[in-house]
Amino acid sequence: MPDTHVTYTDANLTEAVLGRIRPDANPRTAEIMASLLKHAHAFVRDVKLTPEEWELGIRYLSAMGPFVTDKRNEWILLSDITGVTMLVDALAHASQDNVTETTVLGPFHRENPPVLKNGDNISPDIPGELLEVRALIADAAGKPLAGAQVDVWHADKDGGYDSQIGDGNTHMMRGRFVTRADGVVHFWTVNPSCYPVPHDGPAGQVLAAMGRGPMRPAHIHFWVKAPGHRDLITHIFADGDKYLYEDAVFGVKASLVVDFEAKKKAGLSDHLELDYTFRLPKQA
Amino acid sequence: MPDTHVTYTDANLTEAVLGRIRPDANPRTAEIMASLLKHAHAFVRDVKLTPEEWELGIRYLSAMGPFVTDKRNEWILLSDITGVTMLVDALAHASQDNVTETTVLGPFHRENPPVLKNGDNISPDIPGELLEVRALIADAAGKPLAGAQVDVWHADKDGGYDSQIGDGNTHMMRGRFVTRADGVVHFWTVNPSCYPVPHDGPAGQVLAAMGRGPMRPAHIHFWVKAPGHRDLITHIFADGDKYLYEDAVFGVKASLVVDFEAKKKAGLSDHLELDYTFRLPKQA
Repeated sequence: MPDTHVTYTDANLTEAVLGRIRPDANPRTAEIMASLLKHAHAFVRDVKLTPEEWELGIRYLSAMGPFVTDKRNEWILLSDITGVTMLVDALAHASQDNVTETTVLGPFHRENPPVLKNGDNISPDIPGELLEVRALIADAAGKPLAGAQVDVWHADKDGGYDSQIGDGNTHMMRGRFVTRADGVVHFWTVNPSCYPVPHDGPAGQVLAAMGRGPMRPAHIHFWVKAPGHRDLITHIFADGDKYLYEDAVFGVKASLVVDFEAKKKAGLSDHLELDYTFRLPKQA
Repeated sequence: MPDTHVTYTDANLTEAVLGRIRPDANPRTAEIMASLLKHAHAFVRDVKLTPEEWELGIRYLSAMGPFVTDKRNEWILLSDITGVTMLVDALAHASQDNVTETTVLGPFHRENPPVLKNGDNISPDIPGELLEVRALIADAAGKPLAGAQVDVWHADKDGGYDSQIGDGNTHMMRGRFVTRADGVVHFWTVNPSCYPVPHDGPAGQVLAAMGRGPMRPAHIHFWVKAPGHRDLITHIFADGDKYLYEDAVFGVKASLVVDFEAKKKAGLSDHLELDYTFRLPKQA
């Protein structure tokens, strides 16, 4: 589709680029491309990006490649630290009073974790404070869901996931459970610590340029699957963590913050405890 | 800098992310990051990007890495085909009536081309229609500039640059000249053809998704350096090329389009001729 002019200038370039999207392009693709192009051009205009800054930008983007591997995806990390991942999540899962809120999946989930029995310890021989977890999986009305699959994973007392410590292949602080007839998953583990996201690559440069830190508050990941219900991917955060108000990936939601120490402080337990009811929305 | 809330939602995420830019960050970096973050978030909201589309986006970005090599930079190509490069160029070099307009450098310039004498043929033994080039290098007032350095390079009659054909190391259709006392550079070559930008990678996918072609109209590149003047990086386009109105990288400007065939058609020459006066602005 020829443009009607032959001189591209500041004044007509954006219109010319948008005009090149053919009418027979996939409508959703066309919508997404048009918005991307408009925002990319508006960004360049807003900051009056100089050729030298453009070159720095090209060099930055070109440096991402080596940080995209089987074990790490810097683009996901960049999306996480810029709040883009949580924004996509927020738009997809509008908060509802009666179902558990969602948060980022993160990079540490594994496809085939060890399948364990209720009452098992997922962190035998791992040093740290003992934590007992009881998770009730229920529907939006609070009715327990038997036979739901629950993947759990978290960092150790020093903030390392199993893939980052030891030989990187052993499964630790990680397991797959199935809810009992009463909808409960019950297991023992160690209390996780806060930790930094990987910040030795381009995403770390962006954090540093903004004067931001790489820390995430301590949390335990849950991925719950129950027939007839929407998957729930979320974390439970430990209350009192000093990074709760500055999570590097903006994943925190107040409804997901739990005091693991409450019972111990009240003299009701000799170890930490996490009790939480997860409520899943019906499949759309 | 802790945020004042602990639940990030659609409503407060952008503000929270922007609020994390520390006051002591470099002011220009902070300005650029704030604009980038605002536009990235606005894009996600505008199109209500779904988690599945976000994942496709991550996969697209992750596939760029292998196309960034010594011989090719897919990010520059993506910037070119989306009009971003020309927009940066347009903002940096506001058009002035009395100086020659600029356009993209492109990926085919080489650092140390063969240094030739006026009257030389830069394409000996290359098949194609003979083209005689006379380029007058002048200042904004039209005064000839002696001793200016002029790099020229272009594709052959099939649209291939020297780095793309033969062994890829021989210099062809390429040379460095110095203007004579009368400000003129004079050389012989072959008439270049239109050609496609590399479209076997992610940038090609974007072109295809928009229903666009990869073609650029025939042109000759010039990079002029004269003491006391700003570098001029531009092309001269061959009038009548069928892709003149749909250049894949939006590089065309009417003032840079020249009829190479005019003298031959008028019976004044037995070969094609390109005569052009390049006017350089003074160094700022």
